[in-house]
Amino acid sequence: MPRFKLTIEYDGTDYVGWQRQANGPSIQGALEDAARAYCQIDALVQGAGRTDAGVHARGQVAHVDLTRDDHPDVVRNALNAHLKPRPISVISAEKVTEAFHARFSANERGYRYLILNRRAPPALDARQVWWVAAPLNVEAMHEAAQVLVGRHDFTTFRAVQCQADSPVKTLDALDVTRDGEMIAVTTRARSFLHHQVRNFVGTLRLVGEGRWTAADVAAALAARDRSAGGPTAPSTGLCLMHVGYPDAS
Amino acid sequence: MPRFKLTIEYDGTDYVGWQRQANGPSIQGALEDAARAYCQIDALVQGAGRTDAGVHARGQVAHVDLTRDDHPDVVRNALNAHLKPRPISVISAEKVTEAFHARFSANERGYRYLILNRRAPPALDARQVWWVAAPLNVEAMHEAAQVLVGRHDFTTFRAVQCQADSPVKTLDALDVTRDGEMIAVTTRARSFLHHQVRNFVGTLRLVGEGRWTAADVAAALAARDRSAGGPTAPSTGLCLMHVGYPDAS
Repeated sequence: MPRFKLTIEYDGTDYVGWQRQANGPSIQGALEDAARAYCQIDALVQGAGRTDAGVHARGQVAHVDLTRDDHPDVVRNALNAHLKPRPISVISAEKVTEAFHARFSANERGYRYLILNRRAPPALDARQVWWVAAPLNVEAMHEAAQVLVGRHDFTTFRAVQCQADSPVKTLDALDVTRDGEMIAVTTRARSFLHHQVRNFVGTLRLVGEGRWTAADVAAALAARDRSAGGPTAPSTGLCLMHVGYPDAS
Repeated sequence: MPRFKLTIEYDGTDYVGWQRQANGPSIQGALEDAARAYCQIDALVQGAGRTDAGVHARGQVAHVDLTRDDHPDVVRNALNAHLKPRPISVISAEKVTEAFHARFSANERGYRYLILNRRAPPALDARQVWWVAAPLNVEAMHEAAQVLVGRHDFTTFRAVQCQADSPVKTLDALDVTRDGEMIAVTTRARSFLHHQVRNFVGTLRLVGEGRWTAADVAAALAARDRSAGGPTAPSTGLCLMHVGYPDAS
């Protein structure tokens, strides 16, 4: 059975998350239904990142083994035809070897979190941003974010229900930039703990408001205690932007 | 009665357009309802640009006379509270004199039209782009667009039902740029004819596909005949970005 690597964009607002669950529609479930309609098989679509309910993606990666050995562009078009009218789109499909595993081969994940920072609520971008009305100091947020970069025990920023074996991770980048009213928090790591990015953003908001300093963030990190960190930012602003692999596969 | 200038953002997808109409919800109607709920008056909200059904705005401007002389930030917040949960947001309110008229004082309108140019359909940006799967030559589109800049009889690009007195207008700018998969057509003029931007975009698409040349666009313009122009691009990609006034009012 030929294996295909899929790069996927989706609006997660109305989904229970990536993972197939009994309590509502999932991205994985929609893709598996599309693969079944295309190939008449019970396909397993394995994703690189199990995004939560309401979280979006512009560069989620998954793999699937299909019974039809069509050209990758035909695979992409067929899956998209069966995904209609859902807000899920297979941007590209590539044929890969059985050695490729979307989740276990990945060595980098990149996320972006958008904050709309203005007095008026969002209209056009409501589904893709967290609205924060109070003015935020982006320079202070970026400076405090650098405290978190590197290899640390991230227990403070890990959801209580996180199933990862270890809270120790290496954070490669955490940047806070502003473009007009829009603030972007972009981050890269080999992998992330459950709610890690949203807990970073909820904490950095406190810095942006002037209620916390970079030293407070460092103390929270050192506490290794979820209750020492800031609140979890809402899912709506978060987007999985890319998944990296060691070679071109 | 104090007059307020409002700058407004909206997602026009589910609206019949700016103008109050009997056949469905309008942006103007929603704003007038919000003003009525706030001030208990039958307010008339006058907009600078009467955007069509499905067209968006990030910088529509309107004026309204209110009975309450609150601080402009209070006006903005009160209107937004009454607009909830509609995808319409008053970005700012300013007190202006009675000499200010949102439509008649305006001396510039700026629009942006977004084309998502890739094989896969849009997921996250579906409500704000026109999806064109065939690769478009942006340089050729931009070059052909320059034929339209300046003072011309734009009958070829004017909807048959257009109510403007004259088809002669001065187009100040029409630029076509690409950022990855996203193509932006941005344009500025004192005023536009009905469907003018969408007819420009539908015609420039023919150039981007290599079916038309800049000379074909010039010939179409010279024909002064709507049937000589390209098709009307869909409303979904169009957004009113700003309205300019001669002074700070």
